[in-house]
Formats: sequence, C-alpha cells, structure tokens
Amino acid sequence: MKPMGTIPAAFSGEGPLMIGGRSADAWAAEGDTPLFVYDLEVVAAQAAALRSALPGVDIHYAIKANPLPVMVAAVAPLFHGLDVASGGELAIALKSKAASSISFAGPGKKDRELEAAIRAGATINLESSGECDRALAAGARLGVPPRLAVRVNPDFELRGSGMKMGGRASPFGIDAGAAAGVVVRLRAAGADWRGWHIFAGSQSLDSAAIIETQAATIALAARLSEEVGAPPPLVNLGGGFGIPYFAGDTPIDLTAIGAGLASALQARAAILADARFAIELGRYIVGECGVYLTRVIERKESRGETFLVVDGGLHHQLAASGNFGTVVKRNYPVAVATAVAGTPTETVSIVGCLCTPLDRLADRVTLPVARPGDLIAVFLAGAYGLSASPIGFLGHPRPLELIAARRS
Amino acid sequence: MKPMGTIPAAFSGEGPLMIGGRSADAWAAEGDTPLFVYDLEVVAAQAAALRSALPGVDIHYAIKANPLPVMVAAVAPLFHGLDVASGGELAIALKSKAASSISFAGPGKKDRELEAAIRAGATINLESSGECDRALAAGARLGVPPRLAVRVNPDFELRGSGMKMGGRASPFGIDAGAAAGVVVRLRAAGADWRGWHIFAGSQSLDSAAIIETQAATIALAARLSEEVGAPPPLVNLGGGFGIPYFAGDTPIDLTAIGAGLASALQARAAILADARFAIELGRYIVGECGVYLTRVIERKESRGETFLVVDGGLHHQLAASGNFGTVVKRNYPVAVATAVAGTPTETVSIVGCLCTPLDRLADRVTLPVARPGDLIAVFLAGAYGLSASPIGFLGHPRPLELIAARRS
Repeated sequence: MKPMGTIPAAFSGEGPLMIGGRSADAWAAEGDTPLFVYDLEVVAAQAAALRSALPGVDIHYAIKANPLPVMVAAVAPLFHGLDVASGGELAIALKSKAASSISFAGPGKKDRELEAAIRAGATINLESSGECDRALAAGARLGVPPRLAVRVNPDFELRGSGMKMGGRASPFGIDAGAAAGVVVRLRAAGADWRGWHIFAGSQSLDSAAIIETQAATIALAARLSEEVGAPPPLVNLGGGFGIPYFAGDTPIDLTAIGAGLASALQARAAILADARFAIELGRYIVGECGVYLTRVIERKESRGETFLVVDGGLHHQLAASGNFGTVVKRNYPVAVATAVAGTPTETVSIVGCLCTPLDRLADRVTLPVARPGDLIAVFLAGAYGLSASPIGFLGHPRPLELIAARRS
Repeated sequence: MKPMGTIPAAFSGEGPLMIGGRSADAWAAEGDTPLFVYDLEVVAAQAAALRSALPGVDIHYAIKANPLPVMVAAVAPLFHGLDVASGGELAIALKSKAASSISFAGPGKKDRELEAAIRAGATINLESSGECDRALAAGARLGVPPRLAVRVNPDFELRGSGMKMGGRASPFGIDAGAAAGVVVRLRAAGADWRGWHIFAGSQSLDSAAIIETQAATIALAARLSEEVGAPPPLVNLGGGFGIPYFAGDTPIDLTAIGAGLASALQARAAILADARFAIELGRYIVGECGVYLTRVIERKESRGETFLVVDGGLHHQLAASGNFGTVVKRNYPVAVATAVAGTPTETVSIVGCLCTPLDRLADRVTLPVARPGDLIAVFLAGAYGLSASPIGFLGHPRPLELIAARRS
C-alpha cells in the first residue's frame, strides 16, 4: 500500500462525492465519462483568501493553468489581470479582460504574436534582448509604441520550487546584469516601459522561501530600476505558490506570506514608492477546483493484485500518472466517488484505458470497494490537467469539461 | 557538452537536410513551422527488411505509433494486419484494411467499442475474464459470434525492454494460469476463437532477449493450446523491436532475430503446426521515418550558455523532451537542417517556446552555428510524436503533418 495526497477540503465530506452541490453521478449523467468538473466556488474561495492576505497587491491569473474559455471568463472578474503564454492564449484572454490588464510572457514568441499583442495593447514581457529588437521593429511597422516589460532572470531561485526558474542559465528572462540596459534602450526607442517581471520558480510549498524570494525580488527590482534611473510602473513578483498534491505535503501559509510581503513592501526603496506590485498565479487559483471523474470498466485480479481499469487515463491526466516533469510516481488524492460508506478496505491500483504501462492513475492505494460502473474521482485536476495532457493519444474522444457555477 | 543519438541513415548525408528528395526548407515552405514530415520511403525500406528477415510471419502495424489517417492508409498495404487500441483507432483502421485483418487490444474497452469491433468483424484481444463476459454479451445482443483472441500476461518479461509488460501483476492480458480456461469458456459460448496474443515488452534493443522471448512465447502458446485442447488459428508474438534513440544505442539484428524465430518455429509443438504467427510493430515501422522541423526564433546567451529558442517544443515532441516515461533526459538526434557545412562548432541547448523549463528538446549538444530563421530537425519523430504529446498545452496551433511519398 502506498500513501496518497489529501483530498481538498471542498470535496472531503462523508458519503458520495458532491461537486458544487451535485453528486458525481449527476455530473457524469451530463454526458459520457470520463469528464472534468470545475467548481467555481473553490476558485472564488481562493480568490477571497488571496485578496484578504495580499491587500494592495494585484493578482493575475496565469491562464496556462486552465485555458478553457469559460473558465477564463469566469475567473477573470475575480482578479486584476491575466497572464498569457502564446498568441492563442492572448486571443482567449482578450475576450475576458482589457488588453491593458493582460501581459504576455514566454520564450520564442513569433513576430505575428508580438504584433497581435502590440495591436491589442497588451504588455509584452520581453524574454531576451533579441525579442526587444523584434518587438520594437513590430511596433514601428504597426505605428504603435509597444507596451514592454522586461522579464529578469534573477540571480536567485525559489527554494523548494517544483520548477526552478532563476539562479542559473535560462531560456527565461534577461540575465539580471543585462536587464537595465535593455530598458534604457527600449525607452530611448519610444516604447512604453511597463516595468519588471521577475519569476524565480513555481509550485513551492515552503512559505519561508516564498517570503524570502519576494523580498529578494523587490530588492532586485529596486536595484535594476536605479540602474535604469526611472521608477517602474509595475513589478510582477512572479508566482510560486504551490498546492499540496502528495502525502506529506502541507499547504502554504498565505497569512504569513501576506505579512512578509507587506513588510518587504513597507521597506522598499524610494524608487519603487509609486510602483504597483503583482503576483501571478495559475495552479494556486484553479488547481484544487477540478475533479476528474472516470468510470470503472473492469475489476481485474492479476498475480494477487487488484486493478481497477477505468475509462480515463494519462491522455487526460498526464501529471497524475507521474509522467510530466516528475521523476518518482506519487499518488494524487483519489476517491471512489460513488461510495456511500467511505471506509477503505482494499488496496488497488487504478489504471487507465491506454495500452501502456505508463497509464496508472493511482498505485496501490487503499479505497472502499469499487465495482464496474462506479466513478473514481482524481482530485487536483483543475490546473495542468486536460490542456497539459496528450489528448489525442490512442484516439479516444475528447472529454467534457463542465463548470459548477457559484452556489451563492 | 552531452552526446546525442545517431541520425537515421536516410537523413544523415552531407549538406542541408533532404527528406524524400526535397530540402527541409522546401518542406517548411509548405506551411508554417513547426511541422512533421514523414518519409514513406523509410517505412517501405523497413517493411522490406522485415519481410525479408521474417518470411512466413504476418507483420501487423500497431497504428497507435502513428495514427495519422494518411499514414495508416499508406502503411496498411505494406503489412498483413493492423492492430488498434481504441474505437477511434478501429474506425481509422477500417478505412484501410479488411476487418478480418484488424485486431483490437487494450484494457478498459467500453461496451460500445466491443460492439463496434464485433459488428465490423475485427478480432478482440481479450484483456480480462470480465471483458470476455462483456464481449460474449455484446455478441449475443448483436446476434454475431464475436471473433475473440486471448491476450496472455506471460510468466516472463522481455529483457532490456523500455516497457515491460510481462512477468508481473498487470492490467494487460489474462494471467497465463487462467488463460486456457477463458478460451474453453468462449468456445463453449460459440465465439470464434482466433488464438493467442502474448506481448512481453516493447522497445528492446537486445536481439538475444527478443529471440529468447519469442521462443518462450511460442512454447507458452503451445502449452496453453494443449490446455485448451485445440490448435489456435493465430499466435500473435507481440512486438518489442526497439529503435536506437540515444548515444550508445545500437540497432537490433533483424537477420539474427529472423533466424532465431525460424528455428523456434521449426521446433514448435504439433498443436501449433497449422497456426499462423504474427508480430506486431509500431515504433519499429514508423519511428525513423519522421522528422520534426522547427525554426530558430532567437539565439540567446544566458550566464555563459547559448540557447536556441525554437517555435516548437514538448507540446509536439513530449518524448524528445524526456518527459514521457523516461527518468533521465537524454538527447534524441538533432541537426541544423539548413547548415550547408555540417561541422559542429558550438554547444547549445535547444529549448521550445513553452513557458516551462521542461521544454528542452536538446541539452548542451554540439552543432554547427544556427541563426534565427534556421531550421532545426529533431529525428525519430515518426512514432509516438504528435499523437503522444500535449498538443493543446499553451494554446499553440496544431502543426502540419506532411507525407513524403515514395520516390520509386
């Protein structure tokens, strides 16, 4: 038997699983299994917690975490801005937010993507000196001064982060030593300098590290602004707020992070006195709201082990199968969604319907007995789920994605 | 500097990369980059080599390796059968092959998938006793005796295989000890028993292990057939033939494997005297035919390292990024497709356009100097490429997949 992560509080009650006030069975009856259900109440609760802990700081939703257009439309009003990572995401974001509250980061932006951002009036977070040249050229072609921020590859990294993005050679951002020079150049060329974007890592559960990194980020922004000799309109402090996926993970302490950030802002250098500050979050906002529901097709015994063979799999939930950026497979929280009595009594592996041994959604977890026809819930499916999975693999139909609207 | 795998012979000439007689530049001019080009001449050569080394053995193409309908249509006439892993793949296969030459394997088949196979007349490779019950019930509902083979979870595994699928508790196949009983049952119920499917592993480069496993598979099929008391029409020996991806990998010895299989067949038990034998291959047939072409958007220096930022990435080539079933990232063979002089002079990392550090197509490889606008080729992109990648991740457009037709 292997441990699994903790089921998010919104879904951890007794009896059959309820999502947004309806049973998992009722959701599954909306169409075929497997399917995703996203509970907007959970997103609203995260938004309220963030606003309360981080007053005076802009919060941006990084839509790459879940770019489903109806999700973006629902989440956009809860936050100050949207961050996008491609021309395709920009088009989705523009349907839900004014361009002045959209920023576009990511390496390898094509000229046509830069032009689309400039035409719309979105801010481009420049990832390299070469991209600065191309953005200025695109602005000149269009006769529009581009809105440009500079993404900085910081000298430090976010400790404990699942994806380190600072303190090393990187495709992301301009090395801290060269960043001010790029700003001087783009300002001289008549571009509208929007400030700094400094992203040191993501998916950290170490609150002290997040606090320390935010303070270091503010200090770096001050130092770079002094080098430029001008105050930045906005300092995007990046994200990094993790959510607990696995056994032993504990949630971050949002109150402590808010207090730490308030102290760091209080102590900020004069050149940042009038700057706005932003935090961009994706997974932290939508990760816990999503449940992936998949039906048991077979119970199967093989050599003394029991398998629940389900109709979903890694083609929809690559990360849960342990095959996306993780070295060791650990178990996401799962449940038998149709179990009335929740007593775990047997150890099973939950395998998907793909013809590959990689397709294992849970490895030797202890659950109530599930039979063919029962629904299995895989939690934490709101971020980097369907859109980050090989949806075409083995030719299965695209699953439904349903929204549980706010109950209030 | 880190090593990379060997460029397949069909693409390893001097000067700019040619695919099917046309330059990479000409292919890229067909549409936007990134794109895939599949050279059918390479597939035809593999088919000829297989037929020559394995006379008298049916060869099946497992379309999950590359299910692009035009690819399946082009490959189908070269081989005796097609193997599918879902109802969606079955529908593709039926456009190019008679149902009697199609078999459908994979766990978690839905009732409607079983019905589609029975209605068409394709063979279902049963993965469990429960699936046997459901297939018999579906046949009864439709008034059609189903064509059923039994997939066996063998007592042994294929040594050196990338994906072990035998010798352990498994979602795949019926444990060897229970397999004959299922056949007795399905024959008694009036189903058309098509034989055995025994798949011990995939992507092995150990020719001796493949030979040994094929002999063990034939012996197991004989033993199980004796238990049944009837000769099987077909014994599907599985696949397992690997292709070299990484530095140090060497190709399998097809001649030796053919000789080993011929000896094993010569020595087979009397109950298998009239059986046909099949080998099912996906990656081995199409893996080497594919080239992924992606354009350099930026050259970027960061902390002393050089990055080529390209417009493709792991959303199209997940396995090449080292994020699909591999623990350690190793480099697929890559090349600067537009380099006239092929002399490697600098060490670069090739990173994709996704905003994640996972998106690295080549790590510190030594290549000729590439500039923005140049094309990078990632080889071995014919199998488990686009269809096994998170194509929607970060909202980029779907890439073209082009076919280089036979030059003969």
